[in-house]
Amino acid sequence: MKHVIGFDLGGTKMLACLLDEKLTILERSKTKVGDTSKSEAVFGRVVDCIQSLLKSSKVPKDSIEGVGIAIPGPIDLKSGYVLETPNLGFKQFPLRDRLADELKLPVVLENDVNAGLFGEFDLGVAKGLTNVIGLFPGTGIGGAIIIDGKLYRGATGGAGEIGHMIVQIDGRLCGCGQYGCLEALASKTALAKDAAGLAVNGGSPTIARLAGGDISKMKSSVFGKALNAKEPQVERLVERAAWMLGIGMANCVNIFNPEAIVLGGGLVARFGDEYIKIATKSMQEHAMPFLAKDVKVLRAKLGDDAAAIGAGALFRLTRVAA
Amino acid sequence: MKHVIGFDLGGTKMLACLLDEKLTILERSKTKVGDTSKSEAVFGRVVDCIQSLLKSSKVPKDSIEGVGIAIPGPIDLKSGYVLETPNLGFKQFPLRDRLADELKLPVVLENDVNAGLFGEFDLGVAKGLTNVIGLFPGTGIGGAIIIDGKLYRGATGGAGEIGHMIVQIDGRLCGCGQYGCLEALASKTALAKDAAGLAVNGGSPTIARLAGGDISKMKSSVFGKALNAKEPQVERLVERAAWMLGIGMANCVNIFNPEAIVLGGGLVARFGDEYIKIATKSMQEHAMPFLAKDVKVLRAKLGDDAAAIGAGALFRLTRVAA
Repeated sequence: MKHVIGFDLGGTKMLACLLDEKLTILERSKTKVGDTSKSEAVFGRVVDCIQSLLKSSKVPKDSIEGVGIAIPGPIDLKSGYVLETPNLGFKQFPLRDRLADELKLPVVLENDVNAGLFGEFDLGVAKGLTNVIGLFPGTGIGGAIIIDGKLYRGATGGAGEIGHMIVQIDGRLCGCGQYGCLEALASKTALAKDAAGLAVNGGSPTIARLAGGDISKMKSSVFGKALNAKEPQVERLVERAAWMLGIGMANCVNIFNPEAIVLGGGLVARFGDEYIKIATKSMQEHAMPFLAKDVKVLRAKLGDDAAAIGAGALFRLTRVAA
Repeated sequence: MKHVIGFDLGGTKMLACLLDEKLTILERSKTKVGDTSKSEAVFGRVVDCIQSLLKSSKVPKDSIEGVGIAIPGPIDLKSGYVLETPNLGFKQFPLRDRLADELKLPVVLENDVNAGLFGEFDLGVAKGLTNVIGLFPGTGIGGAIIIDGKLYRGATGGAGEIGHMIVQIDGRLCGCGQYGCLEALASKTALAKDAAGLAVNGGSPTIARLAGGDISKMKSSVFGKALNAKEPQVERLVERAAWMLGIGMANCVNIFNPEAIVLGGGLVARFGDEYIKIATKSMQEHAMPFLAKDVKVLRAKLGDDAAAIGAGALFRLTRVAA
């Protein structure tokens, strides 16, 4: 009983990892999330992705303890329900028990950003720290909080929705229905909307060619290619998103006075250190100087694997505690 | 050794309270802060205010254990320095040791909003709760955080600057030098700026008469009188400030998923339940519904005394722990 499966359900892809006792990834299975209009169809693809890993796996089936699932939205830890995921179509969905039935394995759910930050805290850049904030800009912007060395979940398990902090009253529409959330200004979804404008108006030949004006086709690789082509308007768009992220980081610094902010997620993986540098400069310019001067900004080092690894780690922690 | 002095240094007034072992207020001394351009002069008035209480006090001097001081800005707990108070003129000021020398009593410093929330947690509306956010709109907007039943101070003691959370990028100028902080939109200082406009443009005869266009004369009583006169533009101004406060509260709900938000401070004392009702409605409209539905909004019940009582309580807690 040494192995666990860590699973990360992202906004656009899902990843299942078979992990050994040290949380090293032995095998992977990766699928697109696809059409998110029907939660049953998404659920079916989650089951298929994990079954495919189990089938191809070389380790004995009975050495697999269970599955930790990272979910991009709020969950109810007691009931195992996924409450509401604006980007995925789940609403009051009994994912934990439905999955356990299908897989015949115990399942633990965790918010994906909690899982990602916990992975970094357990094995990665935040190892040994005490008070840490995680921000994971991708399709949305996830937030997670570690206080006194523990995941902080709040009164009903829903803490950490830092991406839905309003930073621009009456600003751009967010996927959650509010206006001016950090996520509405600095996520890939926010970038996609402006990129569609650039594509249509001739501001980015690369984006016009690869995605046209269709925001559903704006993968982060599309931005990567436009940046490689040194298209100035796309460079400016990405810089501006980093700058906006830095304002959200500054708010976190003023509120939490953390030792470190960990940045991860799809945009960090794609845009790298230059993006982090701009976000950090913006944070330093917008936070109170006596708080900004000591905070570290750390790049998540487990990359796209962080949430799957963290979910596996949290499965084990939860099962040991239970 | 049963008595302590709790002292609250506000933006416009200072209050010293002699407290018995149950933290009941036996005697008070209250003074205006006055001109804040010279920190030495402010310090002199703090000493005078406390000395005046000591002189008039009927309890034996040797039964007074010491003084807990609530400060409207960040402090360094180790050195006892007041770091920077945009509204008071202190900068790297060794207040703890200077005061202890003058008074010949041990002194403990605390951020005033931490002290206020701790007062409410110890004796007031937040008694028995675990995860609580305090917001205290007055001259500025103070914030405080209780997590797992303890004051959360962050990595270097500076956590809780919720009033300097940016909620309107490029919004109104704040006392801290940034633009669009919650404090710049919803504090008495923010109200004062618009009230000056109303006074000059004929929108408020009451404010014109009592303060003219001078924002330094806009006490909360001036707003109270204009509201009593049912001046519609002043009503709208105060409602709007409450609405803005609710957006800051919504951000706290999304980030912390607290059991309760405690509202206190000068504006709450002045504008009362109607103001809280509007702020709460705004919070519910701007926070994620699954988080907004369970959070309680509580009116601080220790009123203007909260920070002085909390400072006394924290003095005792700190001395017992030491």
